[in-house]
Amino acid sequence: MRKVAVIGGGHTQFMAESPNTSLELAAEASMDAIARANLTPKDIQAICCGNVLGEFSDGQGMIHSYLANDIGCKNVPAFRYEGACATATMAVRDAAMWVASGVLDIVLVCGVEKATAMGTPLATRTFAMFSDSRFETPAGFTFPAVFAMLAHLYASHYNIPLEKLKEQMAQVSVQSHYYGAKNPNAQFQKEITVEKVLKGPMITTPLQLLDCCPFTDGAAAVVLASEEVAQKVTDKPVYIAGSGQASSGHLASQYKHLPHIRAREISVKQAYAMAGIGPEDVDICELHDCFSIASIIAAESLGFAERGTAGEMWEKGQFKIDGETPINISGGLKSKGHPIGATGVSQVYEVAKQLRGGLAEQGRQVDGAKVGLVDTLGGDGIIVNLVLKRE
Amino acid sequence: MRKVAVIGGGHTQFMAESPNTSLELAAEASMDAIARANLTPKDIQAICCGNVLGEFSDGQGMIHSYLANDIGCKNVPAFRYEGACATATMAVRDAAMWVASGVLDIVLVCGVEKATAMGTPLATRTFAMFSDSRFETPAGFTFPAVFAMLAHLYASHYNIPLEKLKEQMAQVSVQSHYYGAKNPNAQFQKEITVEKVLKGPMITTPLQLLDCCPFTDGAAAVVLASEEVAQKVTDKPVYIAGSGQASSGHLASQYKHLPHIRAREISVKQAYAMAGIGPEDVDICELHDCFSIASIIAAESLGFAERGTAGEMWEKGQFKIDGETPINISGGLKSKGHPIGATGVSQVYEVAKQLRGGLAEQGRQVDGAKVGLVDTLGGDGIIVNLVLKRE
Repeated sequence: MRKVAVIGGGHTQFMAESPNTSLELAAEASMDAIARANLTPKDIQAICCGNVLGEFSDGQGMIHSYLANDIGCKNVPAFRYEGACATATMAVRDAAMWVASGVLDIVLVCGVEKATAMGTPLATRTFAMFSDSRFETPAGFTFPAVFAMLAHLYASHYNIPLEKLKEQMAQVSVQSHYYGAKNPNAQFQKEITVEKVLKGPMITTPLQLLDCCPFTDGAAAVVLASEEVAQKVTDKPVYIAGSGQASSGHLASQYKHLPHIRAREISVKQAYAMAGIGPEDVDICELHDCFSIASIIAAESLGFAERGTAGEMWEKGQFKIDGETPINISGGLKSKGHPIGATGVSQVYEVAKQLRGGLAEQGRQVDGAKVGLVDTLGGDGIIVNLVLKRE
Repeated sequence: MRKVAVIGGGHTQFMAESPNTSLELAAEASMDAIARANLTPKDIQAICCGNVLGEFSDGQGMIHSYLANDIGCKNVPAFRYEGACATATMAVRDAAMWVASGVLDIVLVCGVEKATAMGTPLATRTFAMFSDSRFETPAGFTFPAVFAMLAHLYASHYNIPLEKLKEQMAQVSVQSHYYGAKNPNAQFQKEITVEKVLKGPMITTPLQLLDCCPFTDGAAAVVLASEEVAQKVTDKPVYIAGSGQASSGHLASQYKHLPHIRAREISVKQAYAMAGIGPEDVDICELHDCFSIASIIAAESLGFAERGTAGEMWEKGQFKIDGETPINISGGLKSKGHPIGATGVSQVYEVAKQLRGGLAEQGRQVDGAKVGLVDTLGGDGIIVNLVLKRE
């Protein structure tokens, strides 16, 4: 199998109520990525597109076909993927396979979503369709409810008083906003405090408003290419060194493993093994912090903390930019925002940028970062992980 | 690249108003395919799932994750694809790449749809989202309207009186029903006459009711495997010898090529070249006959007839089971039915069965068929073609 490089990236402003259509957002990020890869649309051989709610937000299915045409990538094969919040990393992983196999040399991956287009009540209802429609959705299992239950389970499993866990969770959000304030693409560019989190509106006990990531409109794109192409167009190639993917099914089927998501441990093990690394080698991680408790759970499954201890490590600053493993230095889903079908590509964009050393001017460059990990969770059990490396 | 075999297939009854959920239909076809491949669910290494309207029909996104769990393919990577009516062949083509590359040995591909679950008015509205939401949908561009316009354009381009073209189109539907009557999986198992087509209700001039395929509920699945696995589990392997895919964008962008779809000629050329064959080598073809005029247009782009002549060839019986190129001996979308995200896998199932010689008892076996072609059209411009061969 050939090496696969990330040779360019594009990113729109993440925001609520974007005045642009999904297709316009996707085109903006895609053209940006192609230009930054020092290529033109005619060089693109295929498009892998992540989009979850296009039918609801824009009344538009098969956006990939129109994207290809609109940006001048005429008649290329174009795919659309759906894996809830893991949609875009699924697209990246599949695109990487087309390049690694030697069939294609240059593939554009674009993720896009207008999650705020429906207004919050309908967004919550449409998004609830990405849990099990037989057993979960009818029981009121919206995602805030899922993660609230996991928070209770986590507290009882590891014998942490709920008030203590809430402080730890608040610290996760505070850190995300600290870095998000430095990210010009972020939806929320302002700092918050632990006090503000704890005094905020209660969403579903124990999760308060600022424990929850927002709905977001936005798009991100990356161009993947063979090593040969990468060496021609950039002197700072970043490679996809490993990937993993697994699906766990609905939460009840994972009862032995909860509050941890079974698929994550399977997926990240594959990704680490393929890249020949362990968690101790990761210099920068973007993980799926849809809720503050989700960060704590994910960091443990990814191997950055013993079970029951990640919250404490957040409080000690071990996941800050100068800590042991810098996590979500982009602001994460919490502060940067969470356009569902775009999030995974945004994470890859961010990690690639860190590994290329391009974030010093934003005051959030991880010094000397060489190895990055991407982690996305779709619904209640799809995990995709990617390991990126610079050489 | 390794050879990729189709080693087993499963198919539910195609029908309107299925009492089963999409997940149940997908599980039924998948378990059938796995059993017929002489495998168990534990042998499946990944699932590639085609599904377009699951959010509307079942209130269920990411069906692939629950399918994996429900049928006992625990924790495997599972993908969902969307490319309108070409969704399922897109899934097959992508799955084939994972096997061809050497990364995976055994992949399940399942396509499923409950297109009648919403009732006809809503089905038409949801399905209209798979044309361009800026320029086409607001202009009343439902798919019957699209193909009616293409029929007018075809008649004027090739100087065929509309009444003559209508008779040719009627013959396409008559042939499809003739074979569909012999297919126990078909939605409509009864013959019709040219007179019945021409005296039927007018849908959109010149298309009458029996020029149009139905909405359908159903699922189909195939297991793809490496040559090594295929040789262990079957003495009748069928191989995916070639594939092609292209996206044309909305119809107005194809004005130079209409009534023919630009992407089809690009895609089928790739598929023929990869398989080292031409249209004259095809012994059996399943093509995308969403409307009778669509068959005529497709047969010409695929190389089975000169432009402007395919209707005449249908009338002469050249696409019958004993004709030059047997087309849609399954009954096609018209008579077998068209469960949108399942159609492509159903076509692959059918062609593989023909190449394995398994249709004699249904009275519709193409004698000595060795090479088959699959053709699917998604929306107004996504084409996927697959060439299957037995050795």
